[in-house]
Amino acid sequence: MSQRKRTEIAELGEFGLIDTLTRNATTANKRTIRGVGDDAAVVAAGRDDAMLISTDTLLEGIDFDLTYFPLKHLGYKAVTVGVSDILAMNALPEQIMISIGVSAKLPVEALQDLYEGIDFACRELGVDLVGGDTTASMTGLVINITTIGRAKRKAISYRSGAQFNDLICLTGNLGSAYMGLQLLEREKRVLKDVENPEPQFGGYEYLLQRYLKPRARKDIVEALAEEKIVPTSMIDISDGLASEVLQICKASKCGARIYLDRIPIAKQTSALAEEMHVDPVVAALNGGSDYELLFTVPLAMQEVMRLGMVDIIGHITRETTGAYMVTPDGNDIRLRAQGFKE
Amino acid sequence: MSQRKRTEIAELGEFGLIDTLTRNATTANKRTIRGVGDDAAVVAAGRDDAMLISTDTLLEGIDFDLTYFPLKHLGYKAVTVGVSDILAMNALPEQIMISIGVSAKLPVEALQDLYEGIDFACRELGVDLVGGDTTASMTGLVINITTIGRAKRKAISYRSGAQFNDLICLTGNLGSAYMGLQLLEREKRVLKDVENPEPQFGGYEYLLQRYLKPRARKDIVEALAEEKIVPTSMIDISDGLASEVLQICKASKCGARIYLDRIPIAKQTSALAEEMHVDPVVAALNGGSDYELLFTVPLAMQEVMRLGMVDIIGHITRETTGAYMVTPDGNDIRLRAQGFKE
Repeated sequence: MSQRKRTEIAELGEFGLIDTLTRNATTANKRTIRGVGDDAAVVAAGRDDAMLISTDTLLEGIDFDLTYFPLKHLGYKAVTVGVSDILAMNALPEQIMISIGVSAKLPVEALQDLYEGIDFACRELGVDLVGGDTTASMTGLVINITTIGRAKRKAISYRSGAQFNDLICLTGNLGSAYMGLQLLEREKRVLKDVENPEPQFGGYEYLLQRYLKPRARKDIVEALAEEKIVPTSMIDISDGLASEVLQICKASKCGARIYLDRIPIAKQTSALAEEMHVDPVVAALNGGSDYELLFTVPLAMQEVMRLGMVDIIGHITRETTGAYMVTPDGNDIRLRAQGFKE
Repeated sequence: MSQRKRTEIAELGEFGLIDTLTRNATTANKRTIRGVGDDAAVVAAGRDDAMLISTDTLLEGIDFDLTYFPLKHLGYKAVTVGVSDILAMNALPEQIMISIGVSAKLPVEALQDLYEGIDFACRELGVDLVGGDTTASMTGLVINITTIGRAKRKAISYRSGAQFNDLICLTGNLGSAYMGLQLLEREKRVLKDVENPEPQFGGYEYLLQRYLKPRARKDIVEALAEEKIVPTSMIDISDGLASEVLQICKASKCGARIYLDRIPIAKQTSALAEEMHVDPVVAALNGGSDYELLFTVPLAMQEVMRLGMVDIIGHITRETTGAYMVTPDGNDIRLRAQGFKE
């Protein structure tokens, strides 16, 4: 056999891996506006418009556990995951395609539940289900989501547009989906050998809903349009705040300061975190799966606060100063992204 | 537990399953031209143009076996599979997004091989790689392909446009990819316990190439445009001729007669089929993975033959007469599609 070098994926991390693999990607086509490196690809459609296309894959055992994930919710969440990528470019989703790889062990009725959740989410968001197919899977359930959106070219927010002194804005609260997952995992462990398990979620239903049935923030993109605000940069929170801030900094060649006490954390999140001896800030920074939107606007555009659904959690700094979180007692902690999920 | 009915996926078959699952799919958006049920979804883009989007998933163990599938070829084939769906609508591919789910056991170098094949195919076809991501997979390699194409709305060929008396045309030859797969599977069995296996493919390299590195028939779509021929219906051969003819018949509400002795089969295909005691016609009808194009044109449009790369293999009949293959001795055999691959 050849003595070829062997590099482990973990050495590069998820983002390093993508960078390495797509280094030679062509973008020769005149209608390709933006290729690899954002939440969605952008393709010219008409003179002033663009279409945005994104793909996501959800794998059983990695992204969801069917022991406790109801298929109806999984269908709903699949649509949220897909649509969130389009919203993260300040565009509106219009179509979605969902393909599934499925083992014969799942009955048709289970897949009908999945599609009921998909249809429900599509109707709620005004998105058309326009395709997809089913193939056999030897192993677990595989869900692939392709989402198609639309925007005026000028209104698209890329990751790369953040400017020095911009305000960093965040919708909703963070860490609740992560704590919902912790709760489900705990009940699964506790009830592993129980014959008729009756999990106890008393008081934490909000966290479950945030993990199992997260809503895509279409309302925010609509509200921004109404206020005629085009964020200078935008991204959705799928991997955790720290990772997303670093993505913006990398793409925009800037630094950032996030104020810890400005990060919105729901009461139930703090309560369960305390109960489970987890730091709620870690849940907020690295938990992910929140599907909230993180965006930047110029300092002068404080009227973004009028939207009423947004918190200003920090501001953009020069690239040389790096990306930091500032604690209430004034300490700076360097932001780090989590690595490749295994 | 509830006494809910349990229907096995095999009872419905792959196409019945999709029909059942997408029965309630919405198409409320004014820019959605075609949703579920064709090779690609069609979305309005500008006044006269449309964008076409398709998705495909390739799963290790189902769609490819890494024991003998070189990753460079797999990357190339992934692009062919995606692009073929766009060509099958008489449109030209412009962008592609490829996402992979990958287990940590594969080194980065293996994925670089995969992407080298992807880049090579993209350059050959003039397609831009515009996105995709990597996620961890607990099991095998998962490749998802989203392809974006473009066409004048009037030039798009749907599955549903075939008319009574239309000629049924086919590019290339059939069954060679299937026989290539049989050859690879045979060598794998034979060499299972051999320490330094040296598989023997002498004389059958063409079949291997057809299976491992199939070319998308972009040349055909370009030639049709040059001759100003818009097929009344079109589909690509991914599941086998029988299945694709039945798809056209179902969508177009028509029947078909295919003449067995008109089905082009390569010499190597017949030779290996004889050696392996396989009926080459079965390979052609049900083998699949040929990525050739099947299309219909009006009877008067015999100039399609001028393209020189096309065979007329039959014609469209009335729906009531069904879809048949006619043997050289004049017998009619009803066409049947293979079921859900397991």
